[in-house]
Amino acid sequence: MPHPAYAKSEYPVARIRHFLEAGPTVLISSSWRNRSNIMAHGWLTVMEFSPSLVGAMISAGNHSFEMIRASEECVINIPDASLVDTVAKIGNSSGAQVDKFAEFGLTKMPADAVEAPLIGECFASFECHLHDGRLIDDYNFFIFEVVKAHVSDYAEEMKMLHYRGDGIFTLSGETIERKALFTKVS
Amino acid sequence: MPHPAYAKSEYPVARIRHFLEAGPTVLISSSWRNRSNIMAHGWLTVMEFSPSLVGAMISAGNHSFEMIRASEECVINIPDASLVDTVAKIGNSSGAQVDKFAEFGLTKMPADAVEAPLIGECFASFECHLHDGRLIDDYNFFIFEVVKAHVSDYAEEMKMLHYRGDGIFTLSGETIERKALFTKVS
Repeated sequence: MPHPAYAKSEYPVARIRHFLEAGPTVLISSSWRNRSNIMAHGWLTVMEFSPSLVGAMISAGNHSFEMIRASEECVINIPDASLVDTVAKIGNSSGAQVDKFAEFGLTKMPADAVEAPLIGECFASFECHLHDGRLIDDYNFFIFEVVKAHVSDYAEEMKMLHYRGDGIFTLSGETIERKALFTKVS
Repeated sequence: MPHPAYAKSEYPVARIRHFLEAGPTVLISSSWRNRSNIMAHGWLTVMEFSPSLVGAMISAGNHSFEMIRASEECVINIPDASLVDTVAKIGNSSGAQVDKFAEFGLTKMPADAVEAPLIGECFASFECHLHDGRLIDDYNFFIFEVVKAHVSDYAEEMKMLHYRGDGIFTLSGETIERKALFTKVS
């Protein structure tokens, strides 16, 4: 069973690159017609600070694809490394067969700006509206705007998961600081 | 000074997600009209296995932007963590003022399918052609096809850099394996 849900506080949407630019594996939650689902996901990138844009390739083979396309919203949640088994199982089951929140003991927390639930056990959750869907047909590529961000006070202590394919994850490790060299850009 | 250049072998382009899905900070090299440049970059995502597509948001404020847009090609190179100071300095200087290969002691290695040079000191280099430029005007978003990949035999031992903003990098850490749980997807 996963650890208990984390309390989270509001976090500036323009600063979510602090988490997403590092390339973590995320859990995307969605809701459509009173059903919710979760998918494991790693093909996303920050695209802009303000508005806070994130681009994500969501394979059309996923049960979540039509739910997100129809609802035009989702929540991008970041699991810590202790949830690795849950993340792998979510990625290897389909919302067409199972209720993943119930099956994997995860807690639905209400979002503020979307119907899709936050995943309580994740340490960060970013509520997203679809911003531009013009590449969905050709590439399954969604451009989302993060409209509200929630982050645990303990986020800096969390190790994230970085999926490598073939059942292998790398955890985020040591932090190094080179502020003195950042004279031009952030 | 950086360490010596790495010998690299050809690597399957459909498998570059092994590196890029983990979200490393990369160095993008470009060439246009007999000038080359390098930029530090972290806003990219894998978009497809085959063809091997990568999407990258390249800010129009970068000297590299016009070189890549005009040449319709680049090389995505992955530095290991020992190059952190070089990466930070590359990200905080402009190719309009300095020749970054000369300034930072980096080795230009010839590519096979593009004019842009591989960066010898990086452990992986992916030669890219522009595949779809339709989102460049609105989002500075380039969709590249990786047409040839080169990876060092020692790549699995390398720690990658993951930029977090504010002069902070997280290094890639411990590897964990959950192959037994991957019954459905890779």
